[in-house]
Amino acid sequence: MKKLILLRHGQSIWNLENRFTGWHDVDLSDQGRTEAVAAGQLMADAGLKPDIAYTSVLTRAIRTAFMGLDSLGRLWIPLIKDWRLNERHYGALTGLNKAETAEQYGDEQVHIWRRSFATPPPPLDRDDARHPCNDPRYAGLDPASLPATESLEDTLDRVLPYWQSQLAPALADCSTMLIAAHGNSLRALVKHLEGLSDEAITGVEIATGDPLVYELDDGLSVERKYSLRERS
Amino acid sequence: MKKLILLRHGQSIWNLENRFTGWHDVDLSDQGRTEAVAAGQLMADAGLKPDIAYTSVLTRAIRTAFMGLDSLGRLWIPLIKDWRLNERHYGALTGLNKAETAEQYGDEQVHIWRRSFATPPPPLDRDDARHPCNDPRYAGLDPASLPATESLEDTLDRVLPYWQSQLAPALADCSTMLIAAHGNSLRALVKHLEGLSDEAITGVEIATGDPLVYELDDGLSVERKYSLRERS
Repeated sequence: MKKLILLRHGQSIWNLENRFTGWHDVDLSDQGRTEAVAAGQLMADAGLKPDIAYTSVLTRAIRTAFMGLDSLGRLWIPLIKDWRLNERHYGALTGLNKAETAEQYGDEQVHIWRRSFATPPPPLDRDDARHPCNDPRYAGLDPASLPATESLEDTLDRVLPYWQSQLAPALADCSTMLIAAHGNSLRALVKHLEGLSDEAITGVEIATGDPLVYELDDGLSVERKYSLRERS
Repeated sequence: MKKLILLRHGQSIWNLENRFTGWHDVDLSDQGRTEAVAAGQLMADAGLKPDIAYTSVLTRAIRTAFMGLDSLGRLWIPLIKDWRLNERHYGALTGLNKAETAEQYGDEQVHIWRRSFATPPPPLDRDDARHPCNDPRYAGLDPASLPATESLEDTLDRVLPYWQSQLAPALADCSTMLIAAHGNSLRALVKHLEGLSDEAITGVEIATGDPLVYELDDGLSVERKYSLRERS
């Protein structure tokens, strides 16, 4: 039996300020750091021993992975960072206060951008400082593969190939994997693992700082899932 | 031109207690953490932008790498952990207070173990809890490749193949590499890079928390080296 642990990062500074974050690299708040340490303790209490970990290239997820592994006493396992586990890219909404956005575009439009499966916010221009082409962490990548905005569907369309090409083969080679990432990149994995519809996944909320454990058979089909916080 | 930055971790809790550490996984002291942050700031001030980093599988080096990259604002670069960058293995001396060891074995013998190139301390038994075979972080490795003790020469004999097979090819593919490691694993690299004799390397002291920068040509020959702390 394999175990896959999905861990959504805790509160960030922009969560506190109610701003659209996406690929903007804000850090965890103090509460977010406390959540990361607590998540490591939950994993320790459950006897979980990840032998490999993955995260995005965004500080709030990297720090969650590091602090969680640190409190679990397994800082020494490989921790691989990949942009394909990044949060959904919020395009031109990046950095805007959610209330201001509603005022500018109307509540209904913002609700669609936040909750629909396939509708992305307006894209960023290539010369916008917020466009990934202007961030050194993506300098080695094909600019055509970098999003200027994303719907949840677009997010799935980059997360799932990474699952197929990297995560699933690595999980086949280990016993327990930790993925510390973001609400929407984790939704992509949950949708795939549980076979949820496009409609169903938009209603799924993954709790922050609460390790979600999937027990999988050797073919990586889900046998059981549980939240460590609920169990403790 | 390539840049290779060697960073020796700062003070650990056992440094404070004057005990032989080697592969024992003690953490940084508060001073050691301060040194790691300061090292990141020195790199930032010097405009260094590592695009890949390596460290050992020991917490004090991993935390130094993490805190240094964090204070440099480059937490998102790949950080690869490998046991071949571990500190020299001190065998049966591991965990002993240095004064007590001198009392038990005599000053002269301890001086030989600490300062000679080729003389290892007494080895650990396989069933000793301190033997790497009994540590889960080495579980996936061939037990025959794991040391029960090491001279500085033995340390070189595992570090240099890692340089040849992993570090040098990775450096050829990037512009700036950071290696956060230990006094003796870094000595192995310094000996190789500078072409020092067996005798000469035993007298080289690498300062903790002080990034040592090598500028290398495309064939990885050293053109210049400098310490960031001296330069600042």
